[in-house]
Amino acid sequence: MPSISHRGTVMPASPIRRLVPFAEQAKNKGIKVFHLNIGQPDIKTPQVALEAMHSLDLNVIEYGHSAGRESYIKKLSAYYKTKGININTDQLMITTGGSEAISLAFLSCLDVGDEVIVPEPFYANYYGFASSTGVKVVPLSSDIDTSFALPSFSEIEKLITDRTRAIFICNPNNPTGYLYSREELEQLKDIVKRHDLYLLSDEVYSEFCYDGAQHISIMELEGLEDHTVMIDSVSKRYSECGLRIGMLLSRNPRIIETALKFAQARLCPPTLGQIAAEASLETPEEYFRETNVEYNKRRNFLIERLNRIPGVFSPMPKGAFYTVARLPVDDADKFCQWVLSDFSYNNQTVMMAPASGFYITPGKGTKEVRIAYVLNIDDLAAAIDILERALEAYPNRCLD
Amino acid sequence: MPSISHRGTVMPASPIRRLVPFAEQAKNKGIKVFHLNIGQPDIKTPQVALEAMHSLDLNVIEYGHSAGRESYIKKLSAYYKTKGININTDQLMITTGGSEAISLAFLSCLDVGDEVIVPEPFYANYYGFASSTGVKVVPLSSDIDTSFALPSFSEIEKLITDRTRAIFICNPNNPTGYLYSREELEQLKDIVKRHDLYLLSDEVYSEFCYDGAQHISIMELEGLEDHTVMIDSVSKRYSECGLRIGMLLSRNPRIIETALKFAQARLCPPTLGQIAAEASLETPEEYFRETNVEYNKRRNFLIERLNRIPGVFSPMPKGAFYTVARLPVDDADKFCQWVLSDFSYNNQTVMMAPASGFYITPGKGTKEVRIAYVLNIDDLAAAIDILERALEAYPNRCLD
Repeated sequence: MPSISHRGTVMPASPIRRLVPFAEQAKNKGIKVFHLNIGQPDIKTPQVALEAMHSLDLNVIEYGHSAGRESYIKKLSAYYKTKGININTDQLMITTGGSEAISLAFLSCLDVGDEVIVPEPFYANYYGFASSTGVKVVPLSSDIDTSFALPSFSEIEKLITDRTRAIFICNPNNPTGYLYSREELEQLKDIVKRHDLYLLSDEVYSEFCYDGAQHISIMELEGLEDHTVMIDSVSKRYSECGLRIGMLLSRNPRIIETALKFAQARLCPPTLGQIAAEASLETPEEYFRETNVEYNKRRNFLIERLNRIPGVFSPMPKGAFYTVARLPVDDADKFCQWVLSDFSYNNQTVMMAPASGFYITPGKGTKEVRIAYVLNIDDLAAAIDILERALEAYPNRCLD
Repeated sequence: MPSISHRGTVMPASPIRRLVPFAEQAKNKGIKVFHLNIGQPDIKTPQVALEAMHSLDLNVIEYGHSAGRESYIKKLSAYYKTKGININTDQLMITTGGSEAISLAFLSCLDVGDEVIVPEPFYANYYGFASSTGVKVVPLSSDIDTSFALPSFSEIEKLITDRTRAIFICNPNNPTGYLYSREELEQLKDIVKRHDLYLLSDEVYSEFCYDGAQHISIMELEGLEDHTVMIDSVSKRYSECGLRIGMLLSRNPRIIETALKFAQARLCPPTLGQIAAEASLETPEEYFRETNVEYNKRRNFLIERLNRIPGVFSPMPKGAFYTVARLPVDDADKFCQWVLSDFSYNNQTVMMAPASGFYITPGKGTKEVRIAYVLNIDDLAAAIDILERALEAYPNRCLD
């Protein structure tokens, strides 16, 4: 039998996926599982998107342009201008989800064996895209005790080698909910200019900022036009995760030209998804206001409840819809499994994402979990009750 | 300014794309351009697929399973059984087009620098997927004078090195329309078994076989279960190129498991496309019969007309909807451009794909073009008339 590729063999399965069979078993025993582990919003997709499908007027679902549908690109360019991002139609392309935009950015900016510096903890799938494209992820440690702020200029610079080609942030951050400040972004600007690097930024959560905090896009950093590549997506903005429609933005024409060469091989992004996403640009402002109010309520509720549980600590996230919390346990991987396999309260339990999946530095995040607040307040309250009682009952509880 | 990746810099732009501005210029001069260059069928998408969108009953377009929608996978497994391919639900996964299935097959079977042997001429985008995944394409020459049949066992074996991990065919073939015989497939089976290689097969044109010729899938080759990976797609079968829905099939559980690890990073294939594709399984048999009759008529007409033009030669393709024809010109790249930029007949001209884009061996295919017969007979007739007159008028005509 021929062997599997080495890269396929070493590619880790995510700790969340390891838990899936335990969640299935719980469900089979009649236990209700609250999912705090996933980033699938419960918010409805805008009606305009669904109507675009109901009134779909096509006879042949043809190949489209590799950079995306012209009409959609035009409207997106106008949309970004309303967000303070002045971008022309030839400075953006539509991709198959933010996922593909990341892969295309890696392919265009980095060669096999080149290094990209990513603040850790980071969205676990970045590692998958790096693995597929042969790029090495170099983690830049951020810490729960400093609310996951970026380390100092000199700490970041220490990681730069002759193979470093890019720094890649997620802002607002998945998994931490951290929102980068203007000072931090200016600091990153100085570093990438000094070392002639790319600055990549995944901004798919840009709508989700709380307490009046302002999201600052890397596209707003002046004098950095040749260095910046922004990744965006409709998945979270309009609760359209299944459309698989994302965008790649850059004012460096060689980036767009190169990304397009790779994108041409896969012909085009999904046509139906693009039509729905284009229609979504007509979503009334009210939709975003309501969504934001709802998430803000959930966040305040969740963080307050979490920090009231003895031994639990969560910083207050300023964006996205996640938080990383520290639990008073020996090992969060074991605890998350135990909650599913050995615990229930009123015939209910919770599934959380062990944070170890968001770190690649060995031993980091072993007492942390990522909690997504994509459930309504009642369910969230029930889930936190369960978590609290589970921590009380857990045999390997560690209260310092 | 940071430089573009080396892989992005060396990635060639396709010769077809080089011609696009010339086609645009012709159109701007009011000249009608017949497109013989593209594989976009003019056949209508089945009504059932469009109706599935009109009656779409979703409130949230959520993430789906990374391997594809369960209901669709189940129906696909049953569908393949009707085609003589006995495949279980855990032996197939849905991908974002056949394109992604190829990338996932490369990632799972080959490491960076490993070699895949591909009969040449080959679908140009294979080179793009190889480039993205760091795989080296080793061309196996096939020749227009032998109708693009596979070379002998020993010729193929000569190409095998210690980095060879797979042989990759397209059957029926794009660009040549060649349909591999059982003897050729058995020969490939012997080679991959002897050298412990994978056999990958892109079978997206399997419906398009003529003269009663039978398509034989690599999944039908007995004793090769651990070696075979089949790539499929709905794009051509149902004229749904824009859906971006494909499939990867393998009876080697480690292949599916590994491909899925890479696929999990991109979360899921497009949901709307999957719903339309699932509905397409209910397409009445008549649709395929009518499509086949139509293409067969076009093929017979095209090949007969081509071979009547002095100095032109095209083998009779047995499958797909392309042929590669040799023209009496100095250089097909130059000729294809000249036809767009300097020639018209009755204010009309044609766009063809220079075959050089389907070869990587320098100097091969320079007098050949790929012609897609995706136009109706009247347009096809007009296009061939134009081609004939263009060849008469071309200053660098070379009649041996």
